[in-house]
Amino acid sequence: MSTVLTRIEDWNAVAASLGRDCVLGLVPTMGSLHEGHGALLEEARRRCSVVVASIFVNPIQFDQRSDYDRYARTLEDDVAFCKARGVDYVFEPSEREMYPERQRTFVEVEELSQHLCGAHRPGHFRGVATVVLKLFHIFQPHFALFGEKDYQQLSIVKRLVRDLNLRLEVVGVATVRESDGLAMSSRNRRLSSRERLLAPRLHQALMAARELVAGGETCPAAIRERALAILAGVPEIRPEYFDLVDAEGLQPVRVVDAPVRAAAAVWIGNTRLIDNVLCVPPAITKPQGK
Amino acid sequence: MSTVLTRIEDWNAVAASLGRDCVLGLVPTMGSLHEGHGALLEEARRRCSVVVASIFVNPIQFDQRSDYDRYARTLEDDVAFCKARGVDYVFEPSEREMYPERQRTFVEVEELSQHLCGAHRPGHFRGVATVVLKLFHIFQPHFALFGEKDYQQLSIVKRLVRDLNLRLEVVGVATVRESDGLAMSSRNRRLSSRERLLAPRLHQALMAARELVAGGETCPAAIRERALAILAGVPEIRPEYFDLVDAEGLQPVRVVDAPVRAAAAVWIGNTRLIDNVLCVPPAITKPQGK
Repeated sequence: MSTVLTRIEDWNAVAASLGRDCVLGLVPTMGSLHEGHGALLEEARRRCSVVVASIFVNPIQFDQRSDYDRYARTLEDDVAFCKARGVDYVFEPSEREMYPERQRTFVEVEELSQHLCGAHRPGHFRGVATVVLKLFHIFQPHFALFGEKDYQQLSIVKRLVRDLNLRLEVVGVATVRESDGLAMSSRNRRLSSRERLLAPRLHQALMAARELVAGGETCPAAIRERALAILAGVPEIRPEYFDLVDAEGLQPVRVVDAPVRAAAAVWIGNTRLIDNVLCVPPAITKPQGK
Repeated sequence: MSTVLTRIEDWNAVAASLGRDCVLGLVPTMGSLHEGHGALLEEARRRCSVVVASIFVNPIQFDQRSDYDRYARTLEDDVAFCKARGVDYVFEPSEREMYPERQRTFVEVEELSQHLCGAHRPGHFRGVATVVLKLFHIFQPHFALFGEKDYQQLSIVKRLVRDLNLRLEVVGVATVRESDGLAMSSRNRRLSSRERLLAPRLHQALMAARELVAGGETCPAAIRERALAILAGVPEIRPEYFDLVDAEGLQPVRVVDAPVRAAAAVWIGNTRLIDNVLCVPPAITKPQGK
């Protein structure tokens, strides 16, 4: 049974009753839950004695109000989803509960927010980092779980935790995909049936980059060109970015001589989708002398 | 007996041994301790079962490297000072311990950092807020104590704690002054004997503002002019700012119809001094009908 909490003070009462040996896992979400979140909840369940899922569509991370308004809200389904996965507490606060007064304090993770989505969504990661830090303070979890689909977000939260001396472990969980490769996302349900058929091209483009790197291609521009060719010629798809970045600092690489992350965003009709894959050069795949 | 700790992991070992009913007080300082810090430590001692004083000259809050280099470091005296006041632990980390890699994550408190010192020391309060948040995460204190002399800093830390849902109480402690009114400050020891004689003028100017407000003057420009006249005519003193701001948001007021903070910074020779006082209009000093 999951208990639904809407007030921070309700959680405080729960927290006061938890034993000192409790291991707390937090899965911060914006609701509209799917199997990608399911994997986060299951990993949390494996590691922790108490699992909290938060459901909060965070207004300060939306650069466009229309995107915030259109963001799917499916609370009843989400609570049922959490119950089915053995979540102990669902935290579903109002905007007023999270922001009782106008937020003046913001957290920024420089450099890591500079490229990829950060370059196209001004203030987005500032809003994410700020709400995540608020949730960390409210729940004081031992583990916080985030999906690798939002790789930049995951990297930023990991860096925030290290830079600010927070006492918790950030766990990244592998992207869950549909059978045709499309990464699970709340935004997928906005796609028309034709758009849904086209959407796996994003993953195909990334996998092409992965194969090129595995085959020894080291030039990012060449890889990018070949990957973008997969997205070209389909008027419904407009690539926003396609980049190869180093896995830690998320800076575009000049030459692929170490594992990199290929990350991309595309617009399909009015829906923006993101995805990323790890690309490993052959020298690292097969260490020499073995 | 105060125990000196230089590593975060040393503190972690101490923290693990503290009972659940321990009430922890943190007094963050940059060392060079004086009776102003003494008042903070005594207030911490009154409220808490365990008192930690941190001594760390925080490089990321200095807008000028020369100011950082010149900042007085008197560690042996500081430890003796803490011992004499019953501090339990002195935390005195290296720069490497606090910043093992280049800091990428920064906390900013908008609006409250905009005026007063914030307008003249770019990045200063960002550096303060960031290191204070790191210390809060390291120590997880129940109380953190800051002096009212640094009123803008105190206001920013209070707001940060509220905005980020931190579970601790920020306590402001009244400014401690020399007998001639000069606010205690580590920077006072840089003053030449002639500068030291002139320094109380800063407090006199603020007290003049306080008296004008108490006498019914409501025009900030008029108050400012009269206060600045006290600083004028002394070539060694160069005012940096003199403002009347609302006590919460630290925005300059247009009319003094509620309690305000008069705050000022002056340069005396090569030394920058700040101070502030509360100014209360007469209608509030003597409520009508009483």
